[in-house]
Amino acid sequence: MSKYCIGVDLGGTFIKFALLDEDRRASGTFQLPTPAGRGSAGVVEQMVRGARKLMGDHGLRAADVHGVGIGAPGPLDLDNGVVIAMPNVPGMENVPLRNLVSDGLHLPAVLENDANAAAYGEYLCGVGGGRGDMVMLTLGTGVGSGIVLNGRIHHGSHGIGAELGHMIVEPSGEKCGCGQQGCLERYCSATYIARLARRMIEKDGRASSLQSVLDAKGDIDAKDISDACRDGDELAAYVWDNGAYYLALGCVNICRIFDPDEIVLAGGMARAGDELMEPVTRHFRRLHWKLTEPKTRLAIAALGSDAGVVGAAGVAWQKFAQKR
Amino acid sequence: MSKYCIGVDLGGTFIKFALLDEDRRASGTFQLPTPAGRGSAGVVEQMVRGARKLMGDHGLRAADVHGVGIGAPGPLDLDNGVVIAMPNVPGMENVPLRNLVSDGLHLPAVLENDANAAAYGEYLCGVGGGRGDMVMLTLGTGVGSGIVLNGRIHHGSHGIGAELGHMIVEPSGEKCGCGQQGCLERYCSATYIARLARRMIEKDGRASSLQSVLDAKGDIDAKDISDACRDGDELAAYVWDNGAYYLALGCVNICRIFDPDEIVLAGGMARAGDELMEPVTRHFRRLHWKLTEPKTRLAIAALGSDAGVVGAAGVAWQKFAQKR
Repeated sequence: MSKYCIGVDLGGTFIKFALLDEDRRASGTFQLPTPAGRGSAGVVEQMVRGARKLMGDHGLRAADVHGVGIGAPGPLDLDNGVVIAMPNVPGMENVPLRNLVSDGLHLPAVLENDANAAAYGEYLCGVGGGRGDMVMLTLGTGVGSGIVLNGRIHHGSHGIGAELGHMIVEPSGEKCGCGQQGCLERYCSATYIARLARRMIEKDGRASSLQSVLDAKGDIDAKDISDACRDGDELAAYVWDNGAYYLALGCVNICRIFDPDEIVLAGGMARAGDELMEPVTRHFRRLHWKLTEPKTRLAIAALGSDAGVVGAAGVAWQKFAQKR
Repeated sequence: MSKYCIGVDLGGTFIKFALLDEDRRASGTFQLPTPAGRGSAGVVEQMVRGARKLMGDHGLRAADVHGVGIGAPGPLDLDNGVVIAMPNVPGMENVPLRNLVSDGLHLPAVLENDANAAAYGEYLCGVGGGRGDMVMLTLGTGVGSGIVLNGRIHHGSHGIGAELGHMIVEPSGEKCGCGQQGCLERYCSATYIARLARRMIEKDGRASSLQSVLDAKGDIDAKDISDACRDGDELAAYVWDNGAYYLALGCVNICRIFDPDEIVLAGGMARAGDELMEPVTRHFRRLHWKLTEPKTRLAIAALGSDAGVVGAAGVAWQKFAQKR
């Protein structure tokens, strides 16, 4: 019988669980609520309970499982498997999550940053095809990123690498919350393109069908913009294209730096699919150097919101099973 | 007796030779002219002759040598050890240099891009200390770069990665010969800071002590600027500081991307030493995000123009000797 790895993706609202088999096929994905009121003990208990349920549902005993990969939001101490803090979940300060889960399940465990886990999931089971080099950009509140080189997640020497959203691309540009100026994410994250649309309507008094969205909801999000764009709204088209331009610029820089096989776009904005890929690809080809044709493939993430839990299992697979 | 690796650095004017022992100590460096008139056969003959001389001088037989590392300027086909073309050396088109040198010496050989070899030399025997992650920027005609991650040179999936001089940092800025706009090297290579000084004097009619250099030599180079800077020339100070600013910006981006242990500055401009490091470090600290202190060390290259040949030997060491 084939052996499995368990993936657990710890989020602020839900904990996700999945199995990964030795042929890199994911299955059994489900989620449980993240218990917010019972501190770290409640969280660990829920993680152990979910993993046991996953094993029970599939008739697995500990001997059938290589290990558990845990994805969690930063900041983390990866070497020691410790969650340093977790926004929205009180009591998760300096929790040795890796060892607690490992002890609870009597299985080896490994902790990974959730953004890196998601990139690794796409690398192993999604767009990346499990070979070569892949860079993933996740377009959400900011622009998260994960870098997989030769099948290894790149963490950096001090655990603060792979922050491609904070590449400076407009040195005289917008101030970023990180203290820098002109960071990539200030120009192409879902949050910032929505903010630009709102600014153009409210401050510059520009006409747009998005005005009615603003009136109804009090705010605009990236999906409203892509919807309005599809309906022919000019302001929405400008804002969407501007975001795509900067995303393409980031992709060109990633080619110059890494020359990866794939750059994968993920997160809420990537659900726009071709409506995102078309303008990004167009700007990418124009901005790209002329010394060679573009060789890196741009693609939309294939696993959606399962990438994190699948990748967490994948990290366990790499650590505990790959040597076989 | 300890075994050695031989490094051969093929340049347009000289071929350099060096030995590297198993304790990563380089010795015996010397150079021979690159024969320009006898095609690839003449070049290969000179490489074999030099390597034999190196072995003879140190009383080494083939059994005392792990292998030969060859550094050569691009474009190369690394997988097959082929020089595709070599500016200034006629007859070096599609030459299977690795196999020809290997056959001539009856030793295993490996081919590497010279910029990567230089970075690997600094990594193994210079600033890098032979551990962790290191990025090197070589400031010359352009801005060359080499990336060493976990002791491995990063080439990219299509052999066109590690071109950090072509990161776009001013999207509306200067056109670059590569076909992009606002590439880093257009703002901080030795060539471009000299060009900026000249433009300010000749086109904008700005006063500067560099005028007399222009009158005498017909041109200005980066060393003239750092000299004038030291003598208190205002225009030179502006130009030098502007170059340092963009170099610092590049270093901040490298931290966000790689988070390496060291960023090493090399090439002619780096010979200015503290006069370069002081303004670069000042701008770096100011531009760097505030989420953490800067953790990556900035340093001037330690090996100077020997980095390439030492690194070439190092590449052979990694490939043929490291497993011992």
